[in-house]
Amino acid sequence: MDKTSTLAGAMAPAPEFEVAAWLNAPGPVTLASLRGRVVAVYAFQMLCPGCVSYALPQAKAMEALFGRHELAVLGLHTVFEHHAAMNPEALAAFLHEYRIGFPVGVDMPGTDGPIPRTMARYRMRGTPTLLLFDRAGRLRHSLFGHQGDMQVGALVGALLAEAPASRCDDSGCLVPEGSMP
Amino acid sequence: MDKTSTLAGAMAPAPEFEVAAWLNAPGPVTLASLRGRVVAVYAFQMLCPGCVSYALPQAKAMEALFGRHELAVLGLHTVFEHHAAMNPEALAAFLHEYRIGFPVGVDMPGTDGPIPRTMARYRMRGTPTLLLFDRAGRLRHSLFGHQGDMQVGALVGALLAEAPASRCDDSGCLVPEGSMP
Amino acid sequence: MDKTSTLAGAMAPAPEFEVAAWLNAPGPVTLASLRGRVVAVYAFQMLCPGCVSYALPQAKAMEALFGRHELAVLGLHTVFEHHAAMNPEALAAFLHEYRIGFPVGVDMPGTDGPIPRTMARYRMRGTPTLLLFDRAGRLRHSLFGHQGDMQVGALVGALLAEAPASRCDDSGCLVPEGSMP
Amino acid sequence: MDKTSTLAGAMAPAPEFEVAAWLNAPGPVTLASLRGRVVAVYAFQMLCPGCVSYALPQAKAMEALFGRHELAVLGLHTVFEHHAAMNPEALAAFLHEYRIGFPVGVDMPGTDGPIPRTMARYRMRGTPTLLLFDRAGRLRHSLFGHQGDMQVGALVGALLAEAPASRCDDSGCLVPEGSMP
Repeated sequence: MDKTSTLAGAMAPAPEFEVAAWLNAPGPVTLASLRGRVVAVYAFQMLCPGCVSYALPQAKAMEALFGRHELAVLGLHTVFEHHAAMNPEALAAFLHEYRIGFPVGVDMPGTDGPIPRTMARYRMRGTPTLLLFDRAGRLRHSLFGHQGDMQVGALVGALLAEAPASRCDDSGCLVPEGSMP
Repeated sequence: MDKTSTLAGAMAPAPEFEVAAWLNAPGPVTLASLRGRVVAVYAFQMLCPGCVSYALPQAKAMEALFGRHELAVLGLHTVFEHHAAMNPEALAAFLHEYRIGFPVGVDMPGTDGPIPRTMARYRMRGTPTLLLFDRAGRLRHSLFGHQGDMQVGALVGALLAEAPASRCDDSGCLVPEGSMP
Repeated sequence: MDKTSTLAGAMAPAPEFEVAAWLNAPGPVTLASLRGRVVAVYAFQMLCPGCVSYALPQAKAMEALFGRHELAVLGLHTVFEHHAAMNPEALAAFLHEYRIGFPVGVDMPGTDGPIPRTMARYRMRGTPTLLLFDRAGRLRHSLFGHQGDMQVGALVGALLAEAPASRCDDSGCLVPEGSMP
Repeated sequence: MDKTSTLAGAMAPAPEFEVAAWLNAPGPVTLASLRGRVVAVYAFQMLCPGCVSYALPQAKAMEALFGRHELAVLGLHTVFEHHAAMNPEALAAFLHEYRIGFPVGVDMPGTDGPIPRTMARYRMRGTPTLLLFDRAGRLRHSLFGHQGDMQVGALVGALLAEAPASRCDDSGCLVPEGSMP
């Protein structure tokens, strides 16, 4: 499998996203708040044919298959061309028409070029790109282009099979999400 | 087959489109100028999932299969919702990204409601809608929603099999397109 | 379109099939008895992957779309390899499992080689092959390999649009099928 | 996910298959000889449409994706109807035409009914059925019917992520396959 595996033990948690606005979410979504779950982030552009035909349907299928308590699926709108056509208002219409219900962040525009900030920070080669994070918030795979369902399922299945990360760190211990009355 | 067949003999040529602007064309495209060819018009919206997944790929397949001298394929952008997101600039980006090379007209906005004028005039029920005109410029079929390739092929094949309309009318005779040196 | 068009006017009716047995039919099916209808014959082998994946589903779609009064769909089992595995008993099980309800003829084995007789007579290059006959029983198209639904629809649509052949010939006039009380 | 998970710790290795003959293999294939690898067994019938359309292509995709050193893919021909049509000779022709290269066992015919022995022993409900065994030879999942690629990938990915079973047991220690000079 074509992947960017690295030794998880040596890795620090990945940096947070720089996002100008979140859609389909009551407030900002952070990697830290998703600790304990596997996280799949689909970076896409609404006018990118491969994103629309393959990546976003796959994102919806992942959400349906694995369930939100185990896997968090996010979108990241990483616009690097046709900025006027793919503004946040157009994105909102797109998400509505394509019935995409998971949170989608608008990647923060870059200051010196067309590439938005999170896209640059994660060195994505284009759209679609799928980022997979383990339960400890570490980036484990970064996959560019069309990925088969079986391969993506295998990578997520392996991450889900890993022992849950401790919910405690130097600053204290977190109550598992959704377990408060 | 679900179609709106009527006796061709009793029909007048269909009314021209009311179009604000044409993309992928050097100037306005009229039904009159296409007389002698079968004409397929795909009415669509760039943020309509069924249009993107089925109708526009079918339009491209039609163009590739039948050839431009026999069949003219046109798009008509009939926006009746999310007008801001689907403006002509966004449409141009969409056509570029989806590699749509046939002429696309922007349906003229309506004056008293969200429905654009050609869409209203032809009483379309939504998008996608496929309009099929015979060689004499008469509307022969208006099909709403996803249509199978075999059915569409059969309707076009039957229209192509009809004897070419005379290229002469009260105002004179036209030289067949492409036959001038 | 890749086809074997010939001038219909110059053609005689095609020769009858040489068939050892008919399945899904009360008795022998002849081209003569189908005069007045367009006829689509799918030559296939039950262990030919392309036949199973594409040709036979297309045959079922044709039957469903056009209706039996206009178009007759037939199968022809033209076995030229693995004769033991594809015997008539195996074919019957195959038709049952794949829910194929149209008549299927077993092409008559050849006397001096593996190619059965009708396959040889029609000079088919392999399976699947689609033969299309017009209302007068003349072979109009012989198509080898996977054919797109749109192309097949166009060819059938054009044949259906031709004026019905006279049901009279030197020997008398036929009552149209299905019109007797 | 619809699966038959059980606590692996409490399970004994699954019983061996009862197979009359192996195709695509130099000799009998045993679960014991595959210890250390995850094993996917596709039970199918060559005239079962769902097997041909979905299960066997998925089996080929699994073999291509995961590689033989990690995952062993096997077929099991569990004929419970049309026994004459689906005899071993017909199966050999089928495997040749569909380019199936992994080992396929012919399930041993039952002595008092149409259900073959391994199928009965594993209580399969029909075909296709996918059996997934872990590295220790324990049956972990038995899935009847069409399974999505993503789900199957996730189950296999999780099994592959489990620590390799020790290659030692009461009778001694095995050299890992392929590691001998």
